[in-house]
Amino acid sequence: MTPEALLAHWQGHRRVTRRVIEAFPEDKLFTFSIGGMRPFGVLALEILTMGAPMVRGVVNGTWENNSSRDALPKDGLLKQWDAATEEIDRLWKEIPAERFGETLTAFGQFTDKTYNLLLYVIDNEIHHRGQGYVYLRALDITPPAFYDRS
Amino acid sequence: MTPEALLAHWQGHRRVTRRVIEAFPEDKLFTFSIGGMRPFGVLALEILTMGAPMVRGVVNGTWENNSSRDALPKDGLLKQWDAATEEIDRLWKEIPAERFGETLTAFGQFTDKTYNLLLYVIDNEIHHRGQGYVYLRALDITPPAFYDRS
Repeated sequence: MTPEALLAHWQGHRRVTRRVIEAFPEDKLFTFSIGGMRPFGVLALEILTMGAPMVRGVVNGTWENNSSRDALPKDGLLKQWDAATEEIDRLWKEIPAERFGETLTAFGQFTDKTYNLLLYVIDNEIHHRGQGYVYLRALDITPPAFYDRS
Repeated sequence: MTPEALLAHWQGHRRVTRRVIEAFPEDKLFTFSIGGMRPFGVLALEILTMGAPMVRGVVNGTWENNSSRDALPKDGLLKQWDAATEEIDRLWKEIPAERFGETLTAFGQFTDKTYNLLLYVIDNEIHHRGQGYVYLRALDITPPAFYDRS
């Protein structure tokens, strides 16, 4: 799997997650939850603190992911999402090919090969997005198709 | 990422999914659901029909995944899970290295590079397992840690 293929795979998933954010009613995004879990808006902010910040760290060794988890309007969340999409695309080209197999410590605490760190970020997004699907179904809203990455 | 690393990644996820199955009370595994979704036992059976059957197809071109989705006791489901774990480990060694980059049509309908087909199976498992986490929380049961793949 090439770096370009991994990026395409991730951005495909990120398009689905963006549609899940869009599918939430404005007044449910940061309020609705099940079983004491976090609302989907908070999960989306967590995903945002792991995505572009991970790529930034892989590129230049700067680790920072302490941005706000406070509620914000859906439009503002989508704007952050789109900014992260562009940043990930832009920074990805700066990752030296050999970096993917090197061992890094991300955010001062997660030590693993770079490709495993990136897979963790993608898997965490899929995991929390799956939770968002249940929230949407519980709200009687049909979630976007899981298999459609366009 | 080597074939061995991809297998280790997948089997790590499969250990988490096994713990999610184990965490369900016997009488909720095939009955409890939210928002009209499928119970977790049915999702686990879907995951089983995609895992070992995918690897079987990749190895020998035989595509079959029409096994039962009928409810069964948790112990029986875990036995199927463990049998799939062994089969995946065994068959994985038979996949020629070049096969991962080749394009296949899985189950007569999904055409993609082999590594993408395998990632789809893994992602689908993470996605549905995330739904199982919500079911468990709704049942007031603490799910296993997402990050612990041991």
